[in-house]
Amino acid sequence: MFFHVQRMINEIVPDEPDPGAANALQEGLGGQFGEMRTMLQYLFQSFNFRNAEAKPYRDLLHGIGTEEISHVELIATTIARLTDGSPRYQGSPTALDEPAAGGVTPLSNALSQGNIHHFLVGAQGALPVDAVGNPWSGSYVYNSGNLVLDLLYNLMLESTGRLQKCRIYEMSSNRTLRSTVAYLIVRDQAHENAYARALETLGVDWGKVLPIPKTRAERYPEVAALLEQGLENKQYTFDLDHLSEAGKIFREASPSDDDGTLTTAQAPEGVPIEIADPRPEEFAPGLDPALLELVQATAEQELAEADEPWRYGPTS
Amino acid sequence: MFFHVQRMINEIVPDEPDPGAANALQEGLGGQFGEMRTMLQYLFQSFNFRNAEAKPYRDLLHGIGTEEISHVELIATTIARLTDGSPRYQGSPTALDEPAAGGVTPLSNALSQGNIHHFLVGAQGALPVDAVGNPWSGSYVYNSGNLVLDLLYNLMLESTGRLQKCRIYEMSSNRTLRSTVAYLIVRDQAHENAYARALETLGVDWGKVLPIPKTRAERYPEVAALLEQGLENKQYTFDLDHLSEAGKIFREASPSDDDGTLTTAQAPEGVPIEIADPRPEEFAPGLDPALLELVQATAEQELAEADEPWRYGPTS
Amino acid sequence: MFFHVQRMINEIVPDEPDPGAANALQEGLGGQFGEMRTMLQYLFQSFNFRNAEAKPYRDLLHGIGTEEISHVELIATTIARLTDGSPRYQGSPTALDEPAAGGVTPLSNALSQGNIHHFLVGAQGALPVDAVGNPWSGSYVYNSGNLVLDLLYNLMLESTGRLQKCRIYEMSSNRTLRSTVAYLIVRDQAHENAYARALETLGVDWGKVLPIPKTRAERYPEVAALLEQGLENKQYTFDLDHLSEAGKIFREASPSDDDGTLTTAQAPEGVPIEIADPRPEEFAPGLDPALLELVQATAEQELAEADEPWRYGPTS
Amino acid sequence: MFFHVQRMINEIVPDEPDPGAANALQEGLGGQFGEMRTMLQYLFQSFNFRNAEAKPYRDLLHGIGTEEISHVELIATTIARLTDGSPRYQGSPTALDEPAAGGVTPLSNALSQGNIHHFLVGAQGALPVDAVGNPWSGSYVYNSGNLVLDLLYNLMLESTGRLQKCRIYEMSSNRTLRSTVAYLIVRDQAHENAYARALETLGVDWGKVLPIPKTRAERYPEVAALLEQGLENKQYTFDLDHLSEAGKIFREASPSDDDGTLTTAQAPEGVPIEIADPRPEEFAPGLDPALLELVQATAEQELAEADEPWRYGPTS
Amino acid sequence: MFFHVQRMINEIVPDEPDPGAANALQEGLGGQFGEMRTMLQYLFQSFNFRNAEAKPYRDLLHGIGTEEISHVELIATTIARLTDGSPRYQGSPTALDEPAAGGVTPLSNALSQGNIHHFLVGAQGALPVDAVGNPWSGSYVYNSGNLVLDLLYNLMLESTGRLQKCRIYEMSSNRTLRSTVAYLIVRDQAHENAYARALETLGVDWGKVLPIPKTRAERYPEVAALLEQGLENKQYTFDLDHLSEAGKIFREASPSDDDGTLTTAQAPEGVPIEIADPRPEEFAPGLDPALLELVQATAEQELAEADEPWRYGPTS
Amino acid sequence: MFFHVQRMINEIVPDEPDPGAANALQEGLGGQFGEMRTMLQYLFQSFNFRNAEAKPYRDLLHGIGTEEISHVELIATTIARLTDGSPRYQGSPTALDEPAAGGVTPLSNALSQGNIHHFLVGAQGALPVDAVGNPWSGSYVYNSGNLVLDLLYNLMLESTGRLQKCRIYEMSSNRTLRSTVAYLIVRDQAHENAYARALETLGVDWGKVLPIPKTRAERYPEVAALLEQGLENKQYTFDLDHLSEAGKIFREASPSDDDGTLTTAQAPEGVPIEIADPRPEEFAPGLDPALLELVQATAEQELAEADEPWRYGPTS
Repeated sequence: MFFHVQRMINEIVPDEPDPGAANALQEGLGGQFGEMRTMLQYLFQSFNFRNAEAKPYRDLLHGIGTEEISHVELIATTIARLTDGSPRYQGSPTALDEPAAGGVTPLSNALSQGNIHHFLVGAQGALPVDAVGNPWSGSYVYNSGNLVLDLLYNLMLESTGRLQKCRIYEMSSNRTLRSTVAYLIVRDQAHENAYARALETLGVDWGKVLPIPKTRAERYPEVAALLEQGLENKQYTFDLDHLSEAGKIFREASPSDDDGTLTTAQAPEGVPIEIADPRPEEFAPGLDPALLELVQATAEQELAEADEPWRYGPTS
Repeated sequence: MFFHVQRMINEIVPDEPDPGAANALQEGLGGQFGEMRTMLQYLFQSFNFRNAEAKPYRDLLHGIGTEEISHVELIATTIARLTDGSPRYQGSPTALDEPAAGGVTPLSNALSQGNIHHFLVGAQGALPVDAVGNPWSGSYVYNSGNLVLDLLYNLMLESTGRLQKCRIYEMSSNRTLRSTVAYLIVRDQAHENAYARALETLGVDWGKVLPIPKTRAERYPEVAALLEQGLENKQYTFDLDHLSEAGKIFREASPSDDDGTLTTAQAPEGVPIEIADPRPEEFAPGLDPALLELVQATAEQELAEADEPWRYGPTS
Repeated sequence: MFFHVQRMINEIVPDEPDPGAANALQEGLGGQFGEMRTMLQYLFQSFNFRNAEAKPYRDLLHGIGTEEISHVELIATTIARLTDGSPRYQGSPTALDEPAAGGVTPLSNALSQGNIHHFLVGAQGALPVDAVGNPWSGSYVYNSGNLVLDLLYNLMLESTGRLQKCRIYEMSSNRTLRSTVAYLIVRDQAHENAYARALETLGVDWGKVLPIPKTRAERYPEVAALLEQGLENKQYTFDLDHLSEAGKIFREASPSDDDGTLTTAQAPEGVPIEIADPRPEEFAPGLDPALLELVQATAEQELAEADEPWRYGPTS
Repeated sequence: MFFHVQRMINEIVPDEPDPGAANALQEGLGGQFGEMRTMLQYLFQSFNFRNAEAKPYRDLLHGIGTEEISHVELIATTIARLTDGSPRYQGSPTALDEPAAGGVTPLSNALSQGNIHHFLVGAQGALPVDAVGNPWSGSYVYNSGNLVLDLLYNLMLESTGRLQKCRIYEMSSNRTLRSTVAYLIVRDQAHENAYARALETLGVDWGKVLPIPKTRAERYPEVAALLEQGLENKQYTFDLDHLSEAGKIFREASPSDDDGTLTTAQAPEGVPIEIADPRPEEFAPGLDPALLELVQATAEQELAEADEPWRYGPTS
Repeated sequence: MFFHVQRMINEIVPDEPDPGAANALQEGLGGQFGEMRTMLQYLFQSFNFRNAEAKPYRDLLHGIGTEEISHVELIATTIARLTDGSPRYQGSPTALDEPAAGGVTPLSNALSQGNIHHFLVGAQGALPVDAVGNPWSGSYVYNSGNLVLDLLYNLMLESTGRLQKCRIYEMSSNRTLRSTVAYLIVRDQAHENAYARALETLGVDWGKVLPIPKTRAERYPEVAALLEQGLENKQYTFDLDHLSEAGKIFREASPSDDDGTLTTAQAPEGVPIEIADPRPEEFAPGLDPALLELVQATAEQELAEADEPWRYGPTS
Repeated sequence: MFFHVQRMINEIVPDEPDPGAANALQEGLGGQFGEMRTMLQYLFQSFNFRNAEAKPYRDLLHGIGTEEISHVELIATTIARLTDGSPRYQGSPTALDEPAAGGVTPLSNALSQGNIHHFLVGAQGALPVDAVGNPWSGSYVYNSGNLVLDLLYNLMLESTGRLQKCRIYEMSSNRTLRSTVAYLIVRDQAHENAYARALETLGVDWGKVLPIPKTRAERYPEVAALLEQGLENKQYTFDLDHLSEAGKIFREASPSDDDGTLTTAQAPEGVPIEIADPRPEEFAPGLDPALLELVQATAEQELAEADEPWRYGPTS
């Protein structure tokens, strides 16, 4: 069973919108080696897991899979920020508040930049597709049921994700893009370490080949700042009932050919989530004024309180 | 940010394995109107949401989207139970412990029942596909950015999910299948109520058309038991920080043309998750004996404790 | 601009339902060489046509494309008849009128015969998919813009359609299936003749290779009856304004290596369309009694009459 | 059974070609919420319809489905006009008449604008794909067999189509594009009205939420002109045998929260269809001169006259 | 540049046709981890290879990729043998020689066994699809351009292929199926060894985890016979110009945790290819009698002899 | 069984990189009418062939299919050359040697030109996709099993391939692109001749319609040079055992309405293959320096010699 908080796993730095950068980032969300895939692959591997004696491996998958849901949230929101109002609308503000008044074309940039679906199918938000517009496919999910194979695949998957994010980093200097890409480069390395370490417990010695790509990525300034914090050697469990045994695997020296030591924790603190503004020119006002008025006429009420055992959190 | 507990949202009743029933249930998992789709559709709608003034609607989507992750877990595990050892392997136990010893064919039923991929691609576990084997597609996710449209789509989506589950119920009397199908028939009605009620706050009056299909489904014995508990009129928030405002919408009389009243709660209690047994004939032992020995030679260790604010739960 | 009448282009002979035969017939509807494809391919070729001097070729495409819409109607309805109530529901009539009453399983045959989506996604009706469940794809449509190539492709397409229908004929002796398959074997030959003849006007001599497959198919009793009527040598224009010049091409000796002569006509007479009965166990009652009552309370009214020039037909 | 006339359902205003605008318009043709989908969805719903007592609903679907075939014709032809000769070929006319003479590159703009397939796979014509090049898919067609659900889906579908067309309008001021987009914005509203009204007959009251998006779109000048004619409140039957009962539903006050009244008619008058010119640089001459000569050597002949009952129209 | 001989890389043992087994084997041909994928993945990796200093790795990929073309030939032909005349046609021989004479149904088994497309779309031959009918997709090909990653992926790919073939072996005792499956289980292990060994040259030590699945498979009698010959430790270059440096990698002790030693050779001897008999009931006579007569009337002629340098072989 | 040499079938002329041209050329590789399709279609037709009496037709398919593997190699390598270093990286060489040092963006052109996957998923190499990014699909392969139909389809396929390559030629004057496109225009005509001639042996007379498109393409300067050599009338067998009987078909006057004569040969001489340089900014160094050192420390060794009968070539 899953829970959530209204916090983002990492901060998204504000910058100008950039639909081309947003489109590149779609690969990291809905691409064959993106976060939707890691999320669903690890969750399926966890749901279909066999052998209670191997529980620490199940728990490792369960925890990383849960983290990937938060990565989907992070990268989707970053794409939404990069498309929102992008890049600089032509014409007067009236064109935006009163779409098409007088025949203006506030969305004309959609014809030449990024993915036109960001403006036409969505309302300047993220889509479950890759950087050339292919929808995400269930055929991506790999779960052979053979633990060694599944771990090997996962190591390759995280390494490919990290490789692609290093390439995306080199495509744009937009700070919104880079704040998320840099964070994910480091977290992908943490997951590489997790799966490589799991294979080490089964007898594999990785020698000098890790991490993939073969760089700690300190040359990327935004990445360097996160490596300072040792974020590539920490793994979260995200378990509320403290039953995860992932820490039996994710410990001791990092397999990444540096001098790091692996440690686990429950979860990062996160940052509050902000809700985006309406976009009338997309007919995406959230609620239009007449409907909003209807709603607000309804009296406020407190949430009903119930008796389940999961009433954690600041107010409990 | 998302968390989890090692508990299933509802109990799965044991019965004989049945690969045909498992295949039918795949529609509810990876089909166009299945749980993977509701999960991802509501999460995308929540991530891309606009207008802070309409926050209760965002929170409603966020909470139902989080519940759907647990439904994916429930239905995937149910499918795994239905395929596990299915239906009754031919030949001696040796054939299973020593796959193909002497040329036996323990997996021959895969040629004629259900989805052969359950035995060939997976190791008798769930797959992200529908009941005819089409992989789940990102093109299913609908998120126009126009709130009224998104709510209307979601109402139609839940109603279609409920319709399909009623049809699946009529395809098999397997108790494992039915325990999950009956639960989801009721929860889909709760979600129908949620979206129908959200549209009521915007002025729509549904008259007599809800629920869809037009039955409270009491004729289904397993469903009747859950309706007794009023489970179709309760909605969970799954929020740990008690910030959800979904209860501003999900309250008052049910739109389902009965005399129910809508109320919210944080989460159900759930039941413990059990890990399945190894299947040597699938080469899915979890860990084979030699590797398991390697692992167990490693000393036990306690989980590292960290200082983040999310250390909820029994042991904190 | 397109019109319709409430008549089917050919009669569908009643017989027992047969979901396996229905599934085979899906290839002829939604398969790569089925009627949806011929319909859309010829319509696209017609819409994108170039060169007014070649108008007879455009009109030939336009007319056959229009006929194919009626073939889609015919084959879809045939599939619906073959799945309807199929094959013989188990249990009492109550199970059908009161779905799942007492936990019965009226739809259990869906687990083992034909395409489960006929019962689960549709309500025992036709689907836009092929015989292994792949959805129809726009990538099937061929329209190179080079007339010779388009005609060559169309000849191959009709011949393949005819080949596949001959094979389907050999898969089942169900009379409902065969009445439609036999009709389409003959019409596909008429279309083979049309495209082969169009290439003859451009100088090709087909020698002995036509028709494909190389048989007049008289050995198929249901086909023989239609060949008696010369239906393989007649082509319809379906044009209401009598502007089609297709008859400049479709005339003289048949290219099919027999002694037939090609002639054109406007349209066949057709037979009335019957609306299928409700299926309560699919929650497909058309309208449930309560809603039906609502509707019938509404007073009858005559259709508004307007002044457009297309008021053809019996009542005008 | 279906018929056609050589007339377009609405006029296409001439303007400069614009491949970027053509590509945006592909969404309205082959996109998930485009005209190919509405056409096939309503036709399938009509072919698979159950319950003769609910015939007016079947006839409503049948009529709108037939109209959508004409919309496919209109939008495909508009795309063909927008790509034809687009935007301004480089080099001398010789390059076009004698493709590649001296190595010139008349098609170089295909590398940077719109969809390269418009120039490479087609010969500057429409394709059955969406605005990012995904082929149309049969998986789009929704036909649950439950009438209320099908109507609800159709209402959502038309509203989404209208929303997307409003967005396309804001992307370009090309008059060819806009003449078709404006017409379809208004017709989509008529279809919204049709399905909303059908649900009203079953007891739903829409309050203030219609039309979606929440604007009569008078700010779009080309749309305003059509609203003047009340085109959003008229529905055509396109039936030649005058058996349609759609008018029992499509009547009385419009559900669109304005003071319109719904009325039915048989069909609009339409405008003549023009055949496009050859494009030698695409090797799409229709017929090349040598072949054309062959054809013209063939004597003219009149169309054979036949005796079927459908000989309507000016010449009969 | 590529060449071929009219010989199969391994013998196919005759047995009864079995369409269910044929369908299972499709996974090994057109599945996500089948031979079409390995063939194209290694060829693309070879064509796009970077760094002349790493030529032995390129040559290893080039050679295995070439072997996979022969595996595609082997497995496709095996499927064709398994479907040919399958399983035992009903009715008299006349039904086969004179398709549908008297309305018989020689192809009726296609409705209930294996993949109906084997009989309907193909003429009892192999298809480029997997075991649930999904067409092979270019999205399967992995070629990141990072050598370590590509090798890691290839190791996982061959291991998954071997795992799936072990499972197929356990589904049927048909000797035709097993002769090919057993051969490929052994060859997949040879390729596992190749990629594992390549990673060893880069410093990885595999410990005890190989081969995957963790068995030499001697319990499979047909496999044991091939292991006797050491076929799992031999790799072919298939190069005619003797330039391959793959032998610099594929040598020394096997990484498969046994006492084998890796060696290279040019190619196995192979066995002659036999052409299948006509199937009149599929309208697949090769040539029908009238056309065959036409052809045979043409005088025999010897092949033209040319002067290129590649005139190897018995007759040169 | 298949073999290879380390030679390209035709020379690739060097020029500036051009990612837009590379993308157009993808249609010729992974498009519906590209070389991957011809390769696999002819190989499947050859593997599934029926009737030993028709062996010359099988051998014709087998030989052209083998040639297409070399075409896939040629066109893939051409695309790799066109993307390599494209078009002119911004910033200092350091940015390339030390990716992202100081935050530079050497890959920024990927956001606006060609297919972003060339830089993000691949490392500036070819992909198995078409010019709009759709992955190659097994559904493209046509193999009805009816010889006349298969030949007719193949003729249409080669003609469409030639048409599309003529259009690509007109899109860019890049010499790298054109050297390959011109070669393939001529070879496609040779294959058109092959299939047209095969149908002539069965009695068809093509009159004036060939070749398609209707031009010998001498106006394309690069094509004219190859026509001088008569390359459009020569067909290769690529058979090492001299058993091909394709020459019984491919002989006598060309069906292409010119005065050419068809002749066969074994294979062209080809040109050596060059391995591309590393691209550090793609993390595609082949081997990074540390790993390369590891490898080179390993002593050189000669290839093992074996005794199979296929030891052809210069060194034997």
